[in-house]
Amino acid sequence: MAEDVAQPDQAKRKNIDSILNSKSVAFAGVSKGNWGYVFLNNLLRFGFSGKVYPLNPKGGEIEGLKIYANIKDIPEQVDYVFSCVPASALPQLIEDCTAKGVKMISIFTAGFSELGTEEGRELEMEISRLCRPGGPRLIGPNCMGVYYPGAGLSFAANFPKESGRVALMCQSGGNATCTIRAAGQRGVRFSKAFSYGNACDIDESELLEYFAIDSETDVVAAYIEGVKDGQRFFHVLKELANKKPVLVLKGGHTEAGAMAVASHTGALAGSGNVWDGVLQQAGAIQVHSLEELVDLMVTFSFMPPSRGRGIGMLGIGGGASVLAADQYAEADLILPSLPGDIQDEIRVLMGSDAGMSANNPLDLSYVGRENLYKIAKILSAYEKIDFVIFQIPLGMVVPLPPFSKTMLDPYIETVNKLRSEINKPVAMVVHSIVAIEDWEVTFDAQRKCYEAGVPVYHSIESAAKAIDQFTRYYENRSD
Amino acid sequence: MAEDVAQPDQAKRKNIDSILNSKSVAFAGVSKGNWGYVFLNNLLRFGFSGKVYPLNPKGGEIEGLKIYANIKDIPEQVDYVFSCVPASALPQLIEDCTAKGVKMISIFTAGFSELGTEEGRELEMEISRLCRPGGPRLIGPNCMGVYYPGAGLSFAANFPKESGRVALMCQSGGNATCTIRAAGQRGVRFSKAFSYGNACDIDESELLEYFAIDSETDVVAAYIEGVKDGQRFFHVLKELANKKPVLVLKGGHTEAGAMAVASHTGALAGSGNVWDGVLQQAGAIQVHSLEELVDLMVTFSFMPPSRGRGIGMLGIGGGASVLAADQYAEADLILPSLPGDIQDEIRVLMGSDAGMSANNPLDLSYVGRENLYKIAKILSAYEKIDFVIFQIPLGMVVPLPPFSKTMLDPYIETVNKLRSEINKPVAMVVHSIVAIEDWEVTFDAQRKCYEAGVPVYHSIESAAKAIDQFTRYYENRSD
Repeated sequence: MAEDVAQPDQAKRKNIDSILNSKSVAFAGVSKGNWGYVFLNNLLRFGFSGKVYPLNPKGGEIEGLKIYANIKDIPEQVDYVFSCVPASALPQLIEDCTAKGVKMISIFTAGFSELGTEEGRELEMEISRLCRPGGPRLIGPNCMGVYYPGAGLSFAANFPKESGRVALMCQSGGNATCTIRAAGQRGVRFSKAFSYGNACDIDESELLEYFAIDSETDVVAAYIEGVKDGQRFFHVLKELANKKPVLVLKGGHTEAGAMAVASHTGALAGSGNVWDGVLQQAGAIQVHSLEELVDLMVTFSFMPPSRGRGIGMLGIGGGASVLAADQYAEADLILPSLPGDIQDEIRVLMGSDAGMSANNPLDLSYVGRENLYKIAKILSAYEKIDFVIFQIPLGMVVPLPPFSKTMLDPYIETVNKLRSEINKPVAMVVHSIVAIEDWEVTFDAQRKCYEAGVPVYHSIESAAKAIDQFTRYYENRSD
Repeated sequence: MAEDVAQPDQAKRKNIDSILNSKSVAFAGVSKGNWGYVFLNNLLRFGFSGKVYPLNPKGGEIEGLKIYANIKDIPEQVDYVFSCVPASALPQLIEDCTAKGVKMISIFTAGFSELGTEEGRELEMEISRLCRPGGPRLIGPNCMGVYYPGAGLSFAANFPKESGRVALMCQSGGNATCTIRAAGQRGVRFSKAFSYGNACDIDESELLEYFAIDSETDVVAAYIEGVKDGQRFFHVLKELANKKPVLVLKGGHTEAGAMAVASHTGALAGSGNVWDGVLQQAGAIQVHSLEELVDLMVTFSFMPPSRGRGIGMLGIGGGASVLAADQYAEADLILPSLPGDIQDEIRVLMGSDAGMSANNPLDLSYVGRENLYKIAKILSAYEKIDFVIFQIPLGMVVPLPPFSKTMLDPYIETVNKLRSEINKPVAMVVHSIVAIEDWEVTFDAQRKCYEAGVPVYHSIESAAKAIDQFTRYYENRSD
């Protein structure tokens, strides 16, 4: 699991907290339409309020900004440099940044150890050696750098602008982008995120150590392809997991995946079985896809600690309720049967329309707004219910035209009202989403829900898996 | 697994083929805004070209149509009656329809055996007894009836209007609606679909028998909550599965699900383990969610018989390729490593941009349109590749504004060109879709792909699982 690369003396280096608050950013290697140009534009569009400097030996102007030939020509202080210069030009850039007093460089450029060539490996060793005490800290190479909404830093224009309590470290820039967008769309907000690529300076272990003491972070999510020092990694992961929930997705868990890792970040992926053991012993929560990772980020962001496995489910559709009951049960969750007197109370509120069950899971297809709330309140009061989960299978609804954009309002109102009145987590599953109109309704409902503190899932399976893992986390801690 | 209910003498009853071609439909129990009104409107909006008659004892007019007080007052022949009358009024309606010479009645009304009461059970027995030779065949109760695009029949307005080769039988109307919409959206076209509810006359076994001899059907998908006669079911399922692929989703596979089934369609769900054995021995393909069912409907609709397990994968993103390789491997699919000479050929076409792998899976993030096609052609020619699968992880793309609606065109063109030139199945996975703009691009790309005969999946996991099951089907048949 370990490939030892000379470690810089961390004690003498700037710590991560001190390098994140950047008031000025330079983009090295920018020309119209290239990647440097994309990332520069993304930062501007994200709304960074500090100074932005394009760099290119040819000079000129871009997006109304003067292009400096060399970072040393910039008259003011530069805190953060985003580099897209070719691999071979990097050593000189690092020297110049050191002279300029830059605090942090992230290196988008690839062409290092991940090539699998002696030359690539040599070059990566060289830039590692250039990290001197007092000099800039390096992120990457082969990465997208830092997303730190607190300082207005971002590598994509459409990440959430507000800060939150979830930290992300991600060895792949694409996976980082997707995770932040997908979780952000569902209401998760980030303290900070690092796309850290080949990890030639700031690596997984330093990030885990940092997150353990970071007062801005409550939950940590990680996508890791390989680690430099297995012993140290296990130690810091365990320390962190003892304090905060840590969600880990191991990329390259299979042999085929490990081969893809080798050419991606050059990491030694290690055996999947070894990783399973390491993560479990360290107390991390292992997930197997980005979708699962995001589902758990949503769950840990929105839900108070889990106290049990009882699901109270209510929603639309008989067949949908059957399948949902199966999927919760398959995730080891329990749908407690309701006592007769509670069923009787609910049956009265359901009215005479047949085809609906007064037991858990409750099919409320034909129940009006007011009774929806009353029934939800009765269900949630039952002692064996630990989670109250609504389900709206949009694709199963046979709509009368026009498909109404406010069709979920009664559910959203009920969910939000309930959430403020009961002391149990409430969640919403809007699933079986099959068309653009469905997605419009879903994204809108989702925003209204997460703004009220209610998490939204896009499938029963993902809700069931996430709540199982979430509950298991608290069960293990109470052992 | 079996609950015996008196079976009508099938031999003397009208067979299913003879009742499907309806030129006139009456809706019993229609008034403004109720369910009868919804289904009547859905049929009109679907574009049914025959006669449509609303029925209600109160008479009047609706949607410009005269409401008849009784079916016997309608001067012309009525082929199909969609009933929303209360359960208690049903026996009289069936008598009237018999007198009128109606061929088929589907009964939306619930309030029968699924209530779990003696009264509900009695009523269902009574309508079963009313099915006389020469009288109408019944679908339901507690169902949505027939979707038969060949005759313009539909219970939803937005189902595909064209016919295809996939048949669906579904014990839940909501699940039927979702399956048809979700599969339809991805290019699957149906010969016919039955939402058949409590199955008091036309039941699962008769439908399976019918599909086996139906010349309009090549693939059968089924959602089943319970069966009336386990022995007969096994026998006809095995007969059918011997001729055509049969995909089965068993609702109520767990204890919790089985309880939900009891109050949904009143069926005895049976034990999940027994079902696993029955389906396997009969040669059916078992799936565990509607999503899996739809993925397999897509796969069997678009792909020629599978000849092996080798996946040639190409697409965007290093981290995405790592995770995809893991997911294919976890589904027992193989990503064959490419021989050195093929890698060399590909590396030349990739150009000098680093960060990309010339081995399978191919990360083509920075490859232009022309070389994309050339590389795909080389990859697909390699003998160990059985499927050529593109992957576009939309959420991982860091877009320059505006997010381009034509951004997938180079991939769509390549995929379509390839598909017409090579003798191997080509598929597209557009995944990590996180925002409305992504969905717009996806739905558009999907339509262009399926029109060219290329299936589209929405996650790597679903593509991997579906292709594994698909391949296993042909492996088992060649044993």
